[in-house]
Amino acid sequence: MAEKITSREKDYSQWYIDIVQRAGLADNSDVRGCMVIKPHGYAIWERMQRALDRLFKETGHVNAYFPLFIPKSFLAKEEEMAAGFAKECAVVTHHRLKSIPGQGIVVDPEAKLEEPLIVRPTSETIIWNTYRNWIQSYRDLPLLINQWCNVVRWEMRTRLFLRTAEFLWQEGHTAHATQQEAEEETLRMVKVYRKFAEEWMAMPVLVGPKSDGQKFPGAVYTLCIEAMMQDKKALQAGTSHFLGQNFAKAFDVKFQNKEGKLEHAWATSWGVSTRLIGGIIMTHSDDQGLVLPPRLAPIHVVIVPIFKKPEEKEAVLKAAQTLAASIRQIPLGDWLDYDPIQVKVDDREQHQPGYKFNEWELKGVPVRVELGPKDLEKNACVVARRDVPGKDGKEMGVPLEGAAQRIIEILKAMQTNLLEKARKWRDAATCEVNSWDEFKKKIEEGGFLWAHWDGSRETEDKIAEETKATIRCIPFDRPKEEGKCVLTGKPSAGRVVFAKAY
Amino acid sequence: MAEKITSREKDYSQWYIDIVQRAGLADNSDVRGCMVIKPHGYAIWERMQRALDRLFKETGHVNAYFPLFIPKSFLAKEEEMAAGFAKECAVVTHHRLKSIPGQGIVVDPEAKLEEPLIVRPTSETIIWNTYRNWIQSYRDLPLLINQWCNVVRWEMRTRLFLRTAEFLWQEGHTAHATQQEAEEETLRMVKVYRKFAEEWMAMPVLVGPKSDGQKFPGAVYTLCIEAMMQDKKALQAGTSHFLGQNFAKAFDVKFQNKEGKLEHAWATSWGVSTRLIGGIIMTHSDDQGLVLPPRLAPIHVVIVPIFKKPEEKEAVLKAAQTLAASIRQIPLGDWLDYDPIQVKVDDREQHQPGYKFNEWELKGVPVRVELGPKDLEKNACVVARRDVPGKDGKEMGVPLEGAAQRIIEILKAMQTNLLEKARKWRDAATCEVNSWDEFKKKIEEGGFLWAHWDGSRETEDKIAEETKATIRCIPFDRPKEEGKCVLTGKPSAGRVVFAKAY
Repeated sequence: MAEKITSREKDYSQWYIDIVQRAGLADNSDVRGCMVIKPHGYAIWERMQRALDRLFKETGHVNAYFPLFIPKSFLAKEEEMAAGFAKECAVVTHHRLKSIPGQGIVVDPEAKLEEPLIVRPTSETIIWNTYRNWIQSYRDLPLLINQWCNVVRWEMRTRLFLRTAEFLWQEGHTAHATQQEAEEETLRMVKVYRKFAEEWMAMPVLVGPKSDGQKFPGAVYTLCIEAMMQDKKALQAGTSHFLGQNFAKAFDVKFQNKEGKLEHAWATSWGVSTRLIGGIIMTHSDDQGLVLPPRLAPIHVVIVPIFKKPEEKEAVLKAAQTLAASIRQIPLGDWLDYDPIQVKVDDREQHQPGYKFNEWELKGVPVRVELGPKDLEKNACVVARRDVPGKDGKEMGVPLEGAAQRIIEILKAMQTNLLEKARKWRDAATCEVNSWDEFKKKIEEGGFLWAHWDGSRETEDKIAEETKATIRCIPFDRPKEEGKCVLTGKPSAGRVVFAKAY
Repeated sequence: MAEKITSREKDYSQWYIDIVQRAGLADNSDVRGCMVIKPHGYAIWERMQRALDRLFKETGHVNAYFPLFIPKSFLAKEEEMAAGFAKECAVVTHHRLKSIPGQGIVVDPEAKLEEPLIVRPTSETIIWNTYRNWIQSYRDLPLLINQWCNVVRWEMRTRLFLRTAEFLWQEGHTAHATQQEAEEETLRMVKVYRKFAEEWMAMPVLVGPKSDGQKFPGAVYTLCIEAMMQDKKALQAGTSHFLGQNFAKAFDVKFQNKEGKLEHAWATSWGVSTRLIGGIIMTHSDDQGLVLPPRLAPIHVVIVPIFKKPEEKEAVLKAAQTLAASIRQIPLGDWLDYDPIQVKVDDREQHQPGYKFNEWELKGVPVRVELGPKDLEKNACVVARRDVPGKDGKEMGVPLEGAAQRIIEILKAMQTNLLEKARKWRDAATCEVNSWDEFKKKIEEGGFLWAHWDGSRETEDKIAEETKATIRCIPFDRPKEEGKCVLTGKPSAGRVVFAKAY
């Protein structure tokens, strides 16, 4: 705890690593590319799961669980997907070890599988292979199923939360009787993601389709939410794919429609992952540590009792516990997804208050209450909010009577403030560019560049090659404005958003 | 829905399969030994997770997540564990596929891993390898960590929920400064499991250590909860292991104690899995289908509106919705782990009421409400409880005013009744045996046999060889009674419990 974390200005990458490690969010493991999600990081994921799961269920979805392993032949059935994921597949080839004296434990060559199994990089294939048995008639549709699980994509360069060989996510897989229904679902779910990003994560996002060059392998088109981090790099935060009949055809999933004719079912899939924890860190945190939007914080309020003399201790601790209990009694309902508000009284005696302040600041607890003998004399406490640093974020002399309500108000205000702050910051890191020279200059500064594009894959690839920038999103709400492609000068139907990305 | 499920008397195994499939709990997949957990089955698991997670957190535990893959050399470090799991390990040997024209997608021989990775069968090794970095001082202890995840144990003979190659579970892994603390934790967690089994699952269990022959590979000793199924076979339902310093020594996890000396940490691990869903099915269900204890039911109450004429429809549906809303408003707090009570109004028009009754009976919904025009005339409804078949379980003319409260009472009564019924049944399937002939005869009838045993592994193995019965548990609450071993006649310190088991 002693050392300060690296400042963003000095070394942004190191700042990120410092936050992840020092706030107790995750660790690298001794298994190549795989992370250990530590308790504080996992608790954020649990809050995210609770909120998302509720949003999914409110839109009619149910959860299920499909096998971890995918036979190699399944993956091969959908060509684009096979091509897209082949290079990053962990492959199970044997099902037994054996002990050989002198050599220790070895892979048993006699236990080779007839067909290798892939550890799922995503589950469209195994799920659509199952749906074949579940879908016979239009009455079986829609199937609105989600799965919470781990997936593996063998990545050469990894970064905690943002890109790891194994990560946790949810993947929705729906089947519909008509194209229209499936497209409505694709849109519905990207809107659910936007709602979650903005209202829970306090992270503003662009929403719209990806270009063909950036879509999911196997999708007809991909909708996305796209966020901007503090280093002016973009983060793809969630995607919703319209899969057409691609998987139904690959796995022969047909149903009898109302007219009695056989048709292939229509599909969507959509997912968000533990990558979002990286997004939260890089949207809100500062040089003092993690900043968490209250709706996703594992601990909402920490009360630090302050006392020096033994005779002060009892009264201060009692007042702290009373305040904690009164906060816990305030029902927050759907604002916390029916989870209870978490209040911690930090009564550890081996640490000084200053040490505790720093620790909870580092861990991103939204509200800190300081309570000492002098406060108690005035029947008051000090309330500090994490999103406003220093004195401006401190309310002195908050009456203990009513402090619980005031703290809830602050939590709600902080939730709103974080979104506003992030939106202002994102907008300031956004510009329009109108020439290739301007593009090349601005892209080096980072941020979102709104630029005209001729719509061709070739141009998209060339721009990526020269600048490492990709089309992040073709926002739904882009203004109607025809123009000329920033690279080729060919006609453009409207601006798209470029950025360098994680 | 049309066909009846096989009766238990006719074919118990088929009855189990019928329930699992027809109630929509799980399916076999096309991946060897792996199951698909269907939405209704997964919803039961979600309720189990919610309850267990709360019990774990109330006893001071936090969740985290560790890698899916375990380097082969890690597994080899703890000899007993390596020997115990080597034969059932899925092994990842390659990290890439490639496309070869004419051959399709193949495993890329150039992408062979230097060290094979095991898909975790259990996580002691990877976790204790991580704990080495987390534990330096006694101040870092205890570590009280749990993980919810999937594990893989390559099984040759599988049975849905009870034995599958991949299953879902939780595994707690704790580290302590002293042997006493670790042993207290081992006991605490088996008691948590008993509480869950009895108070949520309504499944009575024996509690106590396993014999050495049945303990977990790598444990000093294993405590267990052991249940009796309706076919008089035992089910190991949860285990809590005292691991001593075995893993700390294998992974060199030392801490500085209060006296400044280096010591190896003390370990426990404990787990329950989706196997418990099999346990619920086989404890309570009947020839009409699934019976669920209300505290773990995904849907608690189904209201079936009954109407023939269109003019009846509106009033009946409105009354059904009003009743549903009034039930939903009753807070059930920790009885449902702060999840909302789930009430479904089955207003599907394509099905007749009789069809719906059968379907919800099959799916194990605890309470069914029937509401038709004649009931409405009397401002009343009919309430049927799932655990009491036929007319005895039906209350006619329950006034709509107060029906919500009455339904909650019935849910709570049903929870208690199921445990009592199961306990009576289990006790009736339990006997003492005092000679080898009696043992051999009784074991064929099934159930728990309390018998004297000389305490040797040799005798235990012989008994298993001859009868397929194993020592399930040495119950904590066994009466003090010395005697003579049922097989060898050697002295015995007390009776132990034998059974044939899943």
